[in-house]
Amino acid sequence: MNHEFFLRRAINLAKQYSKSGKNGPFGAVIVQNKQIIGEGWNQVVSRTDPTAHAEIMAIRQACQNINSHDLKNSVIYSSCEPCPMCLAAIYWAHIPQLIYASDKKAAQKAGFDDDFIYQQIALSITQRQLASQQLLATEGIAVFQTWLDNPQRLPY
Amino acid sequence: MNHEFFLRRAINLAKQYSKSGKNGPFGAVIVQNKQIIGEGWNQVVSRTDPTAHAEIMAIRQACQNINSHDLKNSVIYSSCEPCPMCLAAIYWAHIPQLIYASDKKAAQKAGFDDDFIYQQIALSITQRQLASQQLLATEGIAVFQTWLDNPQRLPY
Repeated sequence: MNHEFFLRRAINLAKQYSKSGKNGPFGAVIVQNKQIIGEGWNQVVSRTDPTAHAEIMAIRQACQNINSHDLKNSVIYSSCEPCPMCLAAIYWAHIPQLIYASDKKAAQKAGFDDDFIYQQIALSITQRQLASQQLLATEGIAVFQTWLDNPQRLPY
Repeated sequence: MNHEFFLRRAINLAKQYSKSGKNGPFGAVIVQNKQIIGEGWNQVVSRTDPTAHAEIMAIRQACQNINSHDLKNSVIYSSCEPCPMCLAAIYWAHIPQLIYASDKKAAQKAGFDDDFIYQQIALSITQRQLASQQLLATEGIAVFQTWLDNPQRLPY
């Protein structure tokens, strides 16, 4: 079983679960030691959850399966280049390797906002379409100091 | 009830749920028509889920509460500037306004990777720390064409 094998599995999940039209055409598979430990497909509409992208679902399932929030030594296979939400989730999960098939430009042509959101994140806060304002900075920062002073804290 | 009121609620969630040391010090609140429709706090360690950030949890709860994956006409209040995963989730949920207290530099000082991940996402794919490779592009793109040809598809 090589990269193509697992990537085809991700592509097949995208195909299979988007047939009804209810789920977006995206699939993902997470592999550790040549074994699949998590699978996911887009379920934004069917779950009423805008965060239920294929990679997020696969990461959640893999973490439950191995009982850890850390997926180091894993590879994620995605039917499409991950959107910024999923890419950041891959970093938070400490997954070191990504294999993908289509890309954000192809996703854009199919009507998805991936490329637009990449562009937005690259802008400074004041330039973004999302109206953003910082308030109560001192109170917010104080929470971090309390955290740092807590000897029981579990970093992740 | 003004912006400070709801932002203090988000800060208080961050304080309250990180006291045990098991949850990271982040909280978020989503408001629609002056009413709280979703709340979240960081539960990465306690739920064994690297995607269980405060904003993601608040978005999920709000969507369940109003039975929609679309949170237009909402404001999200976050105890800290959202990480790229949560920022992209805010875009996917179509939330048009963000009010935050501390920022990614303060989060970095407290030991969190937010700023590092922002830097990684801004890089081209080949420059990132995440080893990334595109394979089977034609097969991946074909899934999008099947999707576009499907008259039952539900865009989101």
